[in-house]
Amino acid sequence: MAASGNRPFLTETSFRVRFAETDMMGIVHHAAYIVYLEEGRSGLGREQGIPYAELERMGFSLAVSDIHIRYYEPARYDDLISVLSWIEQVRSRGMTFGYEIVNTETGQRLVTARTKHICVDHNGTVCRLPHDWIAPLTSQPQAG
Amino acid sequence: MAASGNRPFLTETSFRVRFAETDMMGIVHHAAYIVYLEEGRSGLGREQGIPYAELERMGFSLAVSDIHIRYYEPARYDDLISVLSWIEQVRSRGMTFGYEIVNTETGQRLVTARTKHICVDHNGTVCRLPHDWIAPLTSQPQAG
Amino acid sequence: MAASGNRPFLTETSFRVRFAETDMMGIVHHAAYIVYLEEGRSGLGREQGIPYAELERMGFSLAVSDIHIRYYEPARYDDLISVLSWIEQVRSRGMTFGYEIVNTETGQRLVTARTKHICVDHNGTVCRLPHDWIAPLTSQPQAG
Amino acid sequence: MAASGNRPFLTETSFRVRFAETDMMGIVHHAAYIVYLEEGRSGLGREQGIPYAELERMGFSLAVSDIHIRYYEPARYDDLISVLSWIEQVRSRGMTFGYEIVNTETGQRLVTARTKHICVDHNGTVCRLPHDWIAPLTSQPQAG
Repeated sequence: MAASGNRPFLTETSFRVRFAETDMMGIVHHAAYIVYLEEGRSGLGREQGIPYAELERMGFSLAVSDIHIRYYEPARYDDLISVLSWIEQVRSRGMTFGYEIVNTETGQRLVTARTKHICVDHNGTVCRLPHDWIAPLTSQPQAG
Repeated sequence: MAASGNRPFLTETSFRVRFAETDMMGIVHHAAYIVYLEEGRSGLGREQGIPYAELERMGFSLAVSDIHIRYYEPARYDDLISVLSWIEQVRSRGMTFGYEIVNTETGQRLVTARTKHICVDHNGTVCRLPHDWIAPLTSQPQAG
Repeated sequence: MAASGNRPFLTETSFRVRFAETDMMGIVHHAAYIVYLEEGRSGLGREQGIPYAELERMGFSLAVSDIHIRYYEPARYDDLISVLSWIEQVRSRGMTFGYEIVNTETGQRLVTARTKHICVDHNGTVCRLPHDWIAPLTSQPQAG
Repeated sequence: MAASGNRPFLTETSFRVRFAETDMMGIVHHAAYIVYLEEGRSGLGREQGIPYAELERMGFSLAVSDIHIRYYEPARYDDLISVLSWIEQVRSRGMTFGYEIVNTETGQRLVTARTKHICVDHNGTVCRLPHDWIAPLTSQPQAG
């Protein structure tokens, strides 16, 4: 199933917080969550049939153009966390993703975020998302 | 001089891009700029008389609650870049900073951002910004 | 079973390479493997009954005193890799771990390493490994 | 002057510890020093006339094959540190660097290290160090 209410292509990617991701406040450093969002996108791509590694092999990248992230509660070393990722919008030359990061065991909301991306080739020129890569999204029935 | 038009307490912090900050797209990874913003805040604190290390020694932290960052052009390994940082707002329990990251040599705009922070003690409890720490901001004449 | 030939308490910890861990050479940056080793130790601790998070809660840390790491082949974005970790030595005030990082799917050896650690309390004073934490290692039969 | 006793081409590269480089032990995470060594090499290359960015532009990289690093004392947020870097050996297909990282203000030794590198082209094939890039090292008089 690819859809989930108003969070289309919702995908859950879970992993434990690494020690190296903590800072002297004793909690996860705020920059680490930006990498967690990327992990969420990687997980979504693999699960929804649009693997990001494949896009890179085709000669394209999804450059990040805008991030808005809100921090609610901190994660700590060894916490099991889940990055919930979904697709908010697909445009001809870009995509927007939505996210919620939660503590997997307590369900507590840690972070919400949105990231915008534009498709560029390996010279950095903006271009259309390759049809073959994005096709799995449009061919899936969107229940919900 | 502490003020600069509508960018009060504007501070410039410059350094070179590290090799480790690049990614397989050949450019600086987008998460690295979050650390650059933090470097900008550290530079501003040192220069404006409110060093962040001092706040930590007093038992407080400025936890990040919200980041909005826009990416315009990529930086590359060995580029000299400047983080322009200023204070957008000081509240009783928090602060908001504004930023522009530019290529120091060309002046090209790479990133703009805003970060919001709340003051917490080392138990994570929200509290007022300590007066002694923040005093240098209010005692400085704001030309502009 | 806790032992495996001359690699006592051998533990396998597997995960995928993150995009953020690559550099402009198109491969995983060499510093990322240091974090992978730490992930291996975390996995070993959880699996062998000596969770590192528990040692931290008891007021102690295993400070790294020495790392020797050899790089054979690079890992790339999205590769599934396995950190094989084992205990080379337990001393009263420290431990030594051995590692081999391999590509999980091909078995290709990427890295070998050894790390030495000393037990310190939260003031940085060297001290004995707490008996309660290390006990599970000594009570396990060492077949092999 | 390019030489300094038994530390040929000794170069000092100084910067402040970033907040993001600390961990929950309150000190700099041990993986961050690997990046500091790389900063030391970048500084040495710029100062001794063999800029690493130039080697990359020529189509080559110095892949890391071996690191041995010893940790003596921890650095902390905002500390000013100096990476002393020198060239231990130049071979036809590789180089070895030596390092000492010290607290700039107290002189306290934090880390010593040695890293070995092999020259590879952008397909990962081992090759000779390009003569044009390495020439400045051999043309400099080596006072002792």
